[in-house]
Amino acid sequence: MQQHFVHRYSIYQVEESTDFAPKFDAQGLIPVVTTDATSGEVLMHGYMNAEALELTIASREAHYYSRSRRVLWHKGATSGLVQMVRQLMIDDDQDCLWMKVDVAGTGASCHVGYRSCFYREIPLADAIKPSLELRFTEQEKTFDPHQVYGDAPNPTQL
Amino acid sequence: MQQHFVHRYSIYQVEESTDFAPKFDAQGLIPVVTTDATSGEVLMHGYMNAEALELTIASREAHYYSRSRRVLWHKGATSGLVQMVRQLMIDDDQDCLWMKVDVAGTGASCHVGYRSCFYREIPLADAIKPSLELRFTEQEKTFDPHQVYGDAPNPTQL
Repeated sequence: MQQHFVHRYSIYQVEESTDFAPKFDAQGLIPVVTTDATSGEVLMHGYMNAEALELTIASREAHYYSRSRRVLWHKGATSGLVQMVRQLMIDDDQDCLWMKVDVAGTGASCHVGYRSCFYREIPLADAIKPSLELRFTEQEKTFDPHQVYGDAPNPTQL
Repeated sequence: MQQHFVHRYSIYQVEESTDFAPKFDAQGLIPVVTTDATSGEVLMHGYMNAEALELTIASREAHYYSRSRRVLWHKGATSGLVQMVRQLMIDDDQDCLWMKVDVAGTGASCHVGYRSCFYREIPLADAIKPSLELRFTEQEKTFDPHQVYGDAPNPTQL
């Protein structure tokens, strides 16, 4: 693994060259923004380790590293909601990925059952209000998480 | 500060309620995906601390926490490329934000001079190739970083 990753030796190299020199954090992870290739909607924000990144590139199917379960995670292996990668981008300092995907099945990417993990908005310019309530932007779940995941532990951690 | 943030006490609360209960990591940061409100393009991936999040909500202008400079960062204060926030979303487990913005001036958001920080793509399904070269997807910079930032230290770290 990691055969494709180049050693980082200069800022010019990292920002301006075609060298593929991704930076993994102290936990060996790099954040990934996943958007719907058609609508552009942000579906989720996850993390990859080197293995997940290599597998994603080789298979064109999204692989992540699950921080809560601490395992390599082939997205959709349980739910069938596989993400087929249309384009994979890297940012200026090569410490973040942007992945454009088509989603199989119902098109959902969120374990709670919504299409996107981002189904609530934060009201703006309400700083003087003592309490700030989120607003749901998706009204209906696209699937029933209990039916799909059964008794599998919830990945959300407090 | 942090007057708007609610204590996290259950997974149901975090995922299914309107309680605004963001989770900051061990460094006190939460990742932010910033997209162009019109084109949907991912412009950058940054981090906020509690203060930056409060200021963003109150002012409708994007504030981040700069990990390289270790300061609160009002985006555009130096370059004039202020990001006006159109919508601010939070994800299922409330440990990530998605911010849709309009960018002032040239519309750029990347310190290297490109419109988006994501100006290079990684070739897919080329796993057997020994070297994997990035491809530039933006051909021209929208501004000259030296002119805008002068001798300010580059935020990219090796």
